[in-house]
Amino acid sequence: MVDSSIPTLNTWVEVPKNSDFTIYNLPFGVFKNKKLSPRIGIAIGDKIVDLSILDQEGFFSSFFLPEGVFLKDSLNDFIALGKPQTRKIRERVQQLLLEDNEELKNHSARGKVMVNRKEAEMLLPVKIGDYTDFYSSIEHATNVGKMFRDPENALLPNWRHLPVGYHGRASSIVVSGTSIFRPKGQFKDPDMEKPAFGPSRRLDFELELAFITGKPTKLGDSVDVNEAEDHIFGFVLFNDWSARDIQAWEYVPLGPFLGKNFGSSISPWVVTLEALDPFRVSGPVQEPEVLDYLKSKGDHSFDINLEVYIQPDGSKASKVCTSNFKNMYWNVAQQLAHHTVNGCNINVGDMMASGTISGPTEDSFGSMLELSWKGTKPVKLEDGLERRFIEDGDTVIMKGFAEKDGIRVGFGEVSSQILPAKS
Amino acid sequence: MVDSSIPTLNTWVEVPKNSDFTIYNLPFGVFKNKKLSPRIGIAIGDKIVDLSILDQEGFFSSFFLPEGVFLKDSLNDFIALGKPQTRKIRERVQQLLLEDNEELKNHSARGKVMVNRKEAEMLLPVKIGDYTDFYSSIEHATNVGKMFRDPENALLPNWRHLPVGYHGRASSIVVSGTSIFRPKGQFKDPDMEKPAFGPSRRLDFELELAFITGKPTKLGDSVDVNEAEDHIFGFVLFNDWSARDIQAWEYVPLGPFLGKNFGSSISPWVVTLEALDPFRVSGPVQEPEVLDYLKSKGDHSFDINLEVYIQPDGSKASKVCTSNFKNMYWNVAQQLAHHTVNGCNINVGDMMASGTISGPTEDSFGSMLELSWKGTKPVKLEDGLERRFIEDGDTVIMKGFAEKDGIRVGFGEVSSQILPAKS
Repeated sequence: MVDSSIPTLNTWVEVPKNSDFTIYNLPFGVFKNKKLSPRIGIAIGDKIVDLSILDQEGFFSSFFLPEGVFLKDSLNDFIALGKPQTRKIRERVQQLLLEDNEELKNHSARGKVMVNRKEAEMLLPVKIGDYTDFYSSIEHATNVGKMFRDPENALLPNWRHLPVGYHGRASSIVVSGTSIFRPKGQFKDPDMEKPAFGPSRRLDFELELAFITGKPTKLGDSVDVNEAEDHIFGFVLFNDWSARDIQAWEYVPLGPFLGKNFGSSISPWVVTLEALDPFRVSGPVQEPEVLDYLKSKGDHSFDINLEVYIQPDGSKASKVCTSNFKNMYWNVAQQLAHHTVNGCNINVGDMMASGTISGPTEDSFGSMLELSWKGTKPVKLEDGLERRFIEDGDTVIMKGFAEKDGIRVGFGEVSSQILPAKS
Repeated sequence: MVDSSIPTLNTWVEVPKNSDFTIYNLPFGVFKNKKLSPRIGIAIGDKIVDLSILDQEGFFSSFFLPEGVFLKDSLNDFIALGKPQTRKIRERVQQLLLEDNEELKNHSARGKVMVNRKEAEMLLPVKIGDYTDFYSSIEHATNVGKMFRDPENALLPNWRHLPVGYHGRASSIVVSGTSIFRPKGQFKDPDMEKPAFGPSRRLDFELELAFITGKPTKLGDSVDVNEAEDHIFGFVLFNDWSARDIQAWEYVPLGPFLGKNFGSSISPWVVTLEALDPFRVSGPVQEPEVLDYLKSKGDHSFDINLEVYIQPDGSKASKVCTSNFKNMYWNVAQQLAHHTVNGCNINVGDMMASGTISGPTEDSFGSMLELSWKGTKPVKLEDGLERRFIEDGDTVIMKGFAEKDGIRVGFGEVSSQILPAKS
């Protein structure tokens, strides 16, 4: 499945060096600006290709698309066209942007089609139906198990047999740039006699990637692990904000709730599975062997570099984590097959996040909980600052990109600032 | 808050004795039939009042409703009008149905307005945004704690301090009458060396009530416990199907997932908070005292009789449980205040279920897990049958009704049959 070389493509659009949005990427997003109502676009370099204008000008006439399918405030109806259609549309845009193609380059509508990304406001790309969060990094699960349970038996007995996951809150998933209020809640530290109430004292991020489903199933049906990718439209960066003190007190026996559902932040551009295809790698050996319904053939892991930065108010951004999506023990095909093996139905626009993506080294841990080892080892930042957890005014920025043979396909970023708790 | 007597109302509609759908109730639902497209109605006796026809005929003209607000396949837009509006509409219908009122009784459209309930197909009443399940019965939590954890410390330390809850799956909530396939999944009983895969061997129901939210909040905002009921539109019966073997193996540390999300069944008629008002009772004394944000004034518990029946294929229905909603330790105002205290936003059409409603006596337990005490004490049914858990072909029926001074307000039923696992 791994392409040994990627064919070289050149575009007439100026794409800055190290741009995530190359001719090889072409992610989908929803944007508006002062003049334009919400609509669907594709990012390239510092521009957005306005697909609604391309459609109006007849560039997609051979596809017989429903009228106004790009003039929407979410990608859902577009994604619901199905992968054969959405893939063709992306390929058509790629063709139009090629250096040698004159169709759009010399078209009178070119100016209207190519919108400045700087002037656009990005919206939440999908109306999320249900949101699920997995727990698929063995390093993260081991770290958490060591800190909160038994260091000698950090992984619980089920962990290597199934991709542990739980349901999260869809309503509070927001797009990059949306500030998050520090949550208030109940906590009871081990040294406290009874629980107290107040703003969380241990606010954290979790570095994750999430996939968006693109093909529905009926209640009672299951998705075969080797057909699971047909149901995946694309990926976004996902910051699963977590209040560790609230979570620690509330989570037994039914799992995380208010420690998580005050907000999750995602990047606005949905990078398609097709764009990530050249960056496939084989996953880790799974031992013990998994049950048949989880045996995936081929490569379903992806070599995607991930970074987390903390930028205190009025200071510089400091990189605090360098990780990689290929570190995940459970792959996306296994996650989706497991999720549906009991007949649970999925809809277009469901979101399934990976769980914290931690690597094996101390600088690759995907949360402050792990980086500061439960607050015992402060993380050094620029300007002589340090952090155990996230403070008011801090902005957390996550970036992700795949790179190979000098070719780059990236996610841009998800960035959000923490505001003081509401009084 | 408790009405000591309910004013007597008489209607010109024939309402059978023991009907749940009296002039005092008037629940909202969505229906269609062979001739009529999906629309909103109110149940009374064996009839449905077609609100779209009432609207067309001008009976609501003083309310300035948006056009076609009753010609929808869900209640969401209607509920979103806000409680002052929806309450007025229900009161107007109540007025039109009174014995002495001639407006509809003698109107030429009366035949079109009054649809036979028997000929109608009820649809899922709301498009559910997010679904949350609480765990608010102290009897249920204690029973489960005894069976699965430590009989001496059955309740976990947080239980009396906060209404424990978790997120569930909205996509698989279906309306009464929809069959559910027995889920397949992984399980590992204590005597098994490694996990196995197959149809669940311990399929169970959970007797619950769920409320539907009717007034949205913004991310970062909290609902005061004494204003929480302003955000509650009404209630439905809720069967939280559970696969105990799958759940037991998967649920650590992040909570129930595939053991639950293969399906949940709800009753089609949404009984409003207003209709339940006469049946308020004071809740249990909460000891230790709860934190300030959970201190609710007034009566937020409801005296609602609940029953569960099992009907094996080709046999009679046997009552296996008699419980009451007033048994709940945590009330709905506390649940909603807790859910939003961290700033989690709610939308119109969110659903929040109570958790299994078990009472103090052995015949009041709200699940087979408790009724058969983990399968050790078979439950006797009619025709010499018995059950430890639910078998293929069994139909589980839940009923609920409040009664006082000879006045009855009921939910009808939620009924669904279990089909064999799909191969």
